[in-house]
Amino acid sequence: MALPAPLRGVIPPVCTPLDPHGEVDTASLARLVNHLVEGGVHGLFALGSTSEVAYLTDAHRATALETVVKAADRRVPVLAGAIDTATPRVLDHAGTAARLGADALVATAPFYTRTHPREIAAHFRAIRSAAGLPLFAYDIPMAVHHKLPLPLVRELAEDGTLAGLKDSSGDEGALRRLLVALGGRTARSGGPAPAFSVLTGSELTVDATLLAGADGVVPGIGNVDPAGYVRLYEAARAGDWAQAAAEQERLVALFSMTGIGPEDAMGRSSAALGSFKAALWLLGVIDHGATAFPQIPLSEEAVAEVGRRLTAAGLPPVR
Amino acid sequence: MALPAPLRGVIPPVCTPLDPHGEVDTASLARLVNHLVEGGVHGLFALGSTSEVAYLTDAHRATALETVVKAADRRVPVLAGAIDTATPRVLDHAGTAARLGADALVATAPFYTRTHPREIAAHFRAIRSAAGLPLFAYDIPMAVHHKLPLPLVRELAEDGTLAGLKDSSGDEGALRRLLVALGGRTARSGGPAPAFSVLTGSELTVDATLLAGADGVVPGIGNVDPAGYVRLYEAARAGDWAQAAAEQERLVALFSMTGIGPEDAMGRSSAALGSFKAALWLLGVIDHGATAFPQIPLSEEAVAEVGRRLTAAGLPPVR
Amino acid sequence: MALPAPLRGVIPPVCTPLDPHGEVDTASLARLVNHLVEGGVHGLFALGSTSEVAYLTDAHRATALETVVKAADRRVPVLAGAIDTATPRVLDHAGTAARLGADALVATAPFYTRTHPREIAAHFRAIRSAAGLPLFAYDIPMAVHHKLPLPLVRELAEDGTLAGLKDSSGDEGALRRLLVALGGRTARSGGPAPAFSVLTGSELTVDATLLAGADGVVPGIGNVDPAGYVRLYEAARAGDWAQAAAEQERLVALFSMTGIGPEDAMGRSSAALGSFKAALWLLGVIDHGATAFPQIPLSEEAVAEVGRRLTAAGLPPVR
Amino acid sequence: MALPAPLRGVIPPVCTPLDPHGEVDTASLARLVNHLVEGGVHGLFALGSTSEVAYLTDAHRATALETVVKAADRRVPVLAGAIDTATPRVLDHAGTAARLGADALVATAPFYTRTHPREIAAHFRAIRSAAGLPLFAYDIPMAVHHKLPLPLVRELAEDGTLAGLKDSSGDEGALRRLLVALGGRTARSGGPAPAFSVLTGSELTVDATLLAGADGVVPGIGNVDPAGYVRLYEAARAGDWAQAAAEQERLVALFSMTGIGPEDAMGRSSAALGSFKAALWLLGVIDHGATAFPQIPLSEEAVAEVGRRLTAAGLPPVR
Repeated sequence: MALPAPLRGVIPPVCTPLDPHGEVDTASLARLVNHLVEGGVHGLFALGSTSEVAYLTDAHRATALETVVKAADRRVPVLAGAIDTATPRVLDHAGTAARLGADALVATAPFYTRTHPREIAAHFRAIRSAAGLPLFAYDIPMAVHHKLPLPLVRELAEDGTLAGLKDSSGDEGALRRLLVALGGRTARSGGPAPAFSVLTGSELTVDATLLAGADGVVPGIGNVDPAGYVRLYEAARAGDWAQAAAEQERLVALFSMTGIGPEDAMGRSSAALGSFKAALWLLGVIDHGATAFPQIPLSEEAVAEVGRRLTAAGLPPVR
Repeated sequence: MALPAPLRGVIPPVCTPLDPHGEVDTASLARLVNHLVEGGVHGLFALGSTSEVAYLTDAHRATALETVVKAADRRVPVLAGAIDTATPRVLDHAGTAARLGADALVATAPFYTRTHPREIAAHFRAIRSAAGLPLFAYDIPMAVHHKLPLPLVRELAEDGTLAGLKDSSGDEGALRRLLVALGGRTARSGGPAPAFSVLTGSELTVDATLLAGADGVVPGIGNVDPAGYVRLYEAARAGDWAQAAAEQERLVALFSMTGIGPEDAMGRSSAALGSFKAALWLLGVIDHGATAFPQIPLSEEAVAEVGRRLTAAGLPPVR
Repeated sequence: MALPAPLRGVIPPVCTPLDPHGEVDTASLARLVNHLVEGGVHGLFALGSTSEVAYLTDAHRATALETVVKAADRRVPVLAGAIDTATPRVLDHAGTAARLGADALVATAPFYTRTHPREIAAHFRAIRSAAGLPLFAYDIPMAVHHKLPLPLVRELAEDGTLAGLKDSSGDEGALRRLLVALGGRTARSGGPAPAFSVLTGSELTVDATLLAGADGVVPGIGNVDPAGYVRLYEAARAGDWAQAAAEQERLVALFSMTGIGPEDAMGRSSAALGSFKAALWLLGVIDHGATAFPQIPLSEEAVAEVGRRLTAAGLPPVR
Repeated sequence: MALPAPLRGVIPPVCTPLDPHGEVDTASLARLVNHLVEGGVHGLFALGSTSEVAYLTDAHRATALETVVKAADRRVPVLAGAIDTATPRVLDHAGTAARLGADALVATAPFYTRTHPREIAAHFRAIRSAAGLPLFAYDIPMAVHHKLPLPLVRELAEDGTLAGLKDSSGDEGALRRLLVALGGRTARSGGPAPAFSVLTGSELTVDATLLAGADGVVPGIGNVDPAGYVRLYEAARAGDWAQAAAEQERLVALFSMTGIGPEDAMGRSSAALGSFKAALWLLGVIDHGATAFPQIPLSEEAVAEVGRRLTAAGLPPVR
């Protein structure tokens, strides 16, 4: 389906439920997609960091994307991550995603290797031109260990290489500078790249980022509470900033579940993704809370604590 | 004078004008204080990073603080930085600041050395207890290379060690988690540390941070345009978020002056502080735009460009 | 072929020559393998960072490994990198490498994601057990952004999970602590893991690291001058440390070619790998100096400068 | 006294013993100086990181330096750290050190602030010219968070600004490149800066660094075992590299005491400096093992473990 330009709203990065053998649990994934679409989200982002894309084989990636596209059933657009170390490998993923029916692609700058802004520009241009799909740049220094420079993003926005940016840098000052450079919140439609979509991955400051003129949000914990993020987004669109902030505060409290897994016993990815999946299991959306190997699973105790946080946020578990 | 609890509003970090010999230009500094107070600010922060505290000898620091205290003349409270590598050295500065009439102290965690949260807690407790003045923690990982952990700040807020936090971490997500942990924006007065003041040093996202429940801002570029930040703050207090955001956008555009000094020719501190001082000179507030040695001065061309940015922001130069 | 335990000597990471279309130039690669084996090296490491593994598609990786295995023709053992973001993806590469005849595997800790030492341990154990080949841990913080902790390496050495370590951390102090923990230079055979091979990727301090008790080196610039590294290694084995140091100094001077590509115009990977490939082209070993997309190529001028450095090091170009 | 050019040998950074009130214990410090000089060291470095300079007030610094100079009694030269955030503050310390009889100065690049190589060059030139004493650059990225670039060090070596470098970067590859750029190990006397002294602060790889052509070492744990480092140095001077390496291995094992203080309970500075001081107390050299506030002290258990490591290294405690 054609992607709105700019893409706006709540576009969660879809978790990838796994069965006890580490295979993609397609029935659970289809139910998760319904949970999200029925929660009112405006798009789906498959094969992102929250989807555990770094842990999924090519076969798993294909199964997951196929399942999301089919379950979405053209109700909302599906963005697909094409996440790999450098251009030639990313192009392989991009080709597969196009073939499987993705509506847009999401790619990071090269990682593992040491690169340069001119090389990153060539990277995005090659992906855009080879895959024939709208392309979002995924700025995630925590994973790729460099930040996309503002002038580069602006150049690629203005020349049409990029349909948008997913900013997971956590650098709200830099994001504000970009938004102002693109014309500012009140004047984005008359700015230099009116169709360019700025989406934040910083799920704890969404009210603030929408106030600054961003178009939407890609919230990991939106898997658990899509309707909450949709309410936040709608309040912001309506200019009811106090309501947006109140909803955001409830979601900040809920987000504390990502720190339940103890830091001395497991990775930060395992703790966060494990809590999302435990919550989805507790809510009856998916059948297993397992994260991909070699991530350490949450303890039973930690899962019980996730349940208490759900209840506190008004989302009582069903198991 | 007694510090309001919590301290609220616009509290600029006061630049330290220097004469051509590198001595503190007290006449210019007194004029700058008047410029700020007449701009409507709610407090002054002397001897902070923007004051070039890292470059000032003990004698310079004393002269600068004395001048600020005298020029402020109890119209607004004066916070004084006690910035040094570890507790015993900070205590020396704290004692001097108390003697010279500061109303509160601002201290970072230890730097240069490798420390631990329990050591940082002991550090703040010792400063609070020795100096007999309200104490603000200054979270500035860019300078000290570690971030104050949320549980530590919360503990020191709740037990009364800290009167507030100046957050220059740029980590808006972490700041939001702290604000929610302290009771949230709508319920701060009923929260666990109602007198605790949260001030942001992230001058590009002040509307957003006030929406999140922060009490005020410590903006470096507030030296140049104090009235702009005061308007931003008042709009936010009045709940006029669209107006706050519009003012913020103008200030983001003005802030671009900090990048005029070319990155391959000078430090980022020289470029930013040089632009603030050039602007203050162009506006007729101070007599010399010089930054402290060994910072490289802005070129004439760069100063002219600062002038153009001032004009664009509605602050036409007088020279 | 069976891998010596411990593996000792010079084991260069084999460059992957490409044709002008970005495909693996198998004829050039086979010539490069001969150049290395005839230079006296003790093993070959295919699909490492210097092989541009981050830029090679799965198809390219298979072609490159097959070519190296065939050209090596059991004269020396072939180690194959199985480099990807996390265990399930690494296992796919490991299976392919085993099928294509690699004699051992080399894997990093997970990257892109945030992991934990217990997860890294599980990662290496799973690879070792699934692939049925000796496994080397590749410690390369510059690429994966965390360092393998000493106690983890020691545990995996002593329990036989790892056949060795390729240390590209540049942290010679940590490497020395590991070597002492494993029994020390004079007593390695009687230490707790006598068959464990410690190879350094720090090609500028090989004399020093061999003096400290390391078993060998994986030098990127060993592609250009394998015989030089073999002489260095043999001098060290013979206890002629002055000779080893003199050879090392010549190679340090040669290594300066990696900085010819200007930092403001291209990535550090492009500059280093581009210089190795330019040198191999100038020496007549390979047919094209091209690096993989999107790396920026060296200018003609830079290639000429590479030629001058070769001549200075006693390796006159043939074109 | 006149400093040898180049300065060569073992120059320990002298610990600063404190009494239970946090004051400099001058009697203990004088005994420590004797312990070092009688151990055969070639110079003393007062007011360095290992001296807890970051924790010492100006008064403490003066007392410590005076005590060292007096106790050294011109038997060996005394280098004094002039460690502070930027030039004007460093100049104050440099003036004091000159007045108190230091034979040379040691200064880092500016820290806390963000600087530039041209500013760092101006910084060192100003210190050299104001203080009238030979000046060593102290490259310690762990503390100041940037590394001195090779071309800068080379420029300041060749123009005579610097008498030497104390390299605590841990980057042995970069150090080797510098040594080769300065003429190489065999040809240092004929190189471009023959009087320039290269000292390593990497106390675990001293044999290796001397093999590479360095002139000496500034070992923190040399406080505990000066004679061991002197033996290592003499073996290296005599070309007996096997003996040098054996001595280094013993010192690496001894150095493990720096990790006894548990990472979850205290800072890494506290753990390392606490172990040195505990060892000096156990050996009867100093009267108290206390580190400066707010460092957390070693537990009794940890001190007992330090004693066991001393015994294992052939340095049995006397208490």
